[in-house]
Amino acid sequence: MTAIDPVQLARDLIRAPSVTPEAAPALDVLEAALKPLGFSVDRPVFSDVATPDVENLFAVIGEGDYHLTFAGHVDVVPPGEEAAWRHPPFSGALEENLVYGRGAVDMKGAIAAMVAAFSRFKARRGDFSGRFSFLITGDEEGPGINGTAKLLDWAKTRGHEFSGALVGEPTSSDWVGDQVKIGRRGSYSATIIAHGRQGHAAYPHLAENAVPRLMTLLKGLTATPLDAGSEHFEPSTLEVVDVATGNNAWNVIPGEARARFNSRFNDCWTRQSLRAEVERRLSEAAKGEIHWSLEEGQPPSDSFLARDEALIGSLSSAVSAIVGARPRLSTGGGTSDARFIKDYCPVVELGLVGSTMHQTDERVPAADLEELTRIYEAFLDSIFARTQ
Amino acid sequence: MTAIDPVQLARDLIRAPSVTPEAAPALDVLEAALKPLGFSVDRPVFSDVATPDVENLFAVIGEGDYHLTFAGHVDVVPPGEEAAWRHPPFSGALEENLVYGRGAVDMKGAIAAMVAAFSRFKARRGDFSGRFSFLITGDEEGPGINGTAKLLDWAKTRGHEFSGALVGEPTSSDWVGDQVKIGRRGSYSATIIAHGRQGHAAYPHLAENAVPRLMTLLKGLTATPLDAGSEHFEPSTLEVVDVATGNNAWNVIPGEARARFNSRFNDCWTRQSLRAEVERRLSEAAKGEIHWSLEEGQPPSDSFLARDEALIGSLSSAVSAIVGARPRLSTGGGTSDARFIKDYCPVVELGLVGSTMHQTDERVPAADLEELTRIYEAFLDSIFARTQ
Repeated sequence: MTAIDPVQLARDLIRAPSVTPEAAPALDVLEAALKPLGFSVDRPVFSDVATPDVENLFAVIGEGDYHLTFAGHVDVVPPGEEAAWRHPPFSGALEENLVYGRGAVDMKGAIAAMVAAFSRFKARRGDFSGRFSFLITGDEEGPGINGTAKLLDWAKTRGHEFSGALVGEPTSSDWVGDQVKIGRRGSYSATIIAHGRQGHAAYPHLAENAVPRLMTLLKGLTATPLDAGSEHFEPSTLEVVDVATGNNAWNVIPGEARARFNSRFNDCWTRQSLRAEVERRLSEAAKGEIHWSLEEGQPPSDSFLARDEALIGSLSSAVSAIVGARPRLSTGGGTSDARFIKDYCPVVELGLVGSTMHQTDERVPAADLEELTRIYEAFLDSIFARTQ
Repeated sequence: MTAIDPVQLARDLIRAPSVTPEAAPALDVLEAALKPLGFSVDRPVFSDVATPDVENLFAVIGEGDYHLTFAGHVDVVPPGEEAAWRHPPFSGALEENLVYGRGAVDMKGAIAAMVAAFSRFKARRGDFSGRFSFLITGDEEGPGINGTAKLLDWAKTRGHEFSGALVGEPTSSDWVGDQVKIGRRGSYSATIIAHGRQGHAAYPHLAENAVPRLMTLLKGLTATPLDAGSEHFEPSTLEVVDVATGNNAWNVIPGEARARFNSRFNDCWTRQSLRAEVERRLSEAAKGEIHWSLEEGQPPSDSFLARDEALIGSLSSAVSAIVGARPRLSTGGGTSDARFIKDYCPVVELGLVGSTMHQTDERVPAADLEELTRIYEAFLDSIFARTQ
């Protein structure tokens, strides 16, 4: 058994089109790489109402108490206009040491690096004390219903208890390893509805225009920052993403106006305390004179922080050993499937540089794939050295 | 020739369904009433791109310099759910001295009163010195393209010069004649667009949210009243009738936000000076930091005032003689076809009580039809007494 080349595996994965939720082609490639390494592989398919069935992959190897899992997804976002690509999006073309294709950085490249890292680790170490698994979904870019959340539950019911997890999302900013995510902000979305009384624009004294009422509410909501940040988190944000009345006429004063907002909140808040603060601010702005209501939007997620210093320390040391500098520990950015994993075990995130993700000509330097492989390998060494 | 009964004619007109733009059935009834009175009747049909053809009626009688015209429309708005009506909407049912049906007050009832008033005037006076006409459209409730505007031009090219006009829209508030319109406010509509930079809700520092920018612009636009009113006009109004971003996502910061507003403005302004004031206020609010633009909405109309004291005086005296109180002189409310007529001659407006207009069970007391007929007749007496 020879060690796996991350560049070749990344190209093979890209050549297996898997636009969400069609994961099977890429899972076939992944399974074919994992089986010879000795993994036991399952590919459960999950279903739910009003969402497509999704195939997932769980592969495990080894014995022992400490169970490290590498998590990620093989599904990719659609390529957009294929003719606009320098190379076809599912060609995995290699030009001037760049691998092109949808998923190159988000995140087939990282999965290839994970597999390659383990193959080198195992080739060098032979047996190791502990368990190691891949927790791979085909529903990260989709609705996220039939993916990681259900796969975690599926694994748990089969007796798998995770000790720590690494997610391979493209967390790096300028160079591989410059940034590691040790937590994520929570997300809270809601719609504010200002109620007035509809009427004819020629007779405003007979109506109560909902728009200025909404403006008053929004001013009160956004006048002061939610917080100043915390030890590991940037200040929480709150952005009004939409305003609407639904009125198409010019001569009608709207009786209702809506604003949708999204807050990315840090560990100063829970979804409950943030909602209470939003309601307090709206009540204060309304001064008992504006009738308003609040409807929850997207399902909220809480913020979290990996409070496992050993897991964070192992990853930092691995980065430092390979690239010569310690990574920034970040909690910024959007959400990832780490929001599900954090309910099972401590989780950290490190992957490729994300600058071309979701774009035309998504691409990754072959050198980055090699560097990430070496970081992951050093991380495996560090984790399983501790468990000897 | 016996004088015409306004209640009977109103019922006949209601029984001739004429939902805009299908005017012909009601125009047939009207023509059949006018011909025996000696009117010369024309029914020109006007056409334009992207609007239905509409039939109109012009009927004229008499000789002399002073030309008084009674203007109105026979088209009606749709009846809505017919089963919800106490009596079928085109039955012209008479119950407890109420005439039911679509158009009862807006404005077949007023047209019946106009015809009845002239029939009595003529029966009593025989010849009169001057000209009198009916200027009736089938396109007042529709787009207003193939109606009064074109009929005025049509009459002018045939040598008809109007000295004064009365429009029979339902201007009365609580009882017939309590209010006469001697002008109308202008209407100006536009869309304000605040420009920002789109981005991801998790990274607000990389975006420029257009919503707070729009709020700043709207605050500056509406912070102070446009004016305090003028001698004959209420203060001008400005109502934001809609706000929108067009963004459907929760995680996208909108790069553009729009507000549509409608102003009903008095004779302190022209459409040009009002637009300039709007632009001045937006510029001031933007402080050079917010990129905004303005797009005109519906075609604007200017405010106007009937500056013919004799016309206003004759109508006030007629009301006073019949109901025992002088009418309020008003410039409030929505627009009417008087906005076209005012470019040809002074125009005043008086009609029935409008409380049931456009509603289910639109209806008019038979006594109101009789009262309005007597007011119109006294008005004809007063006008043509002056022209003897």
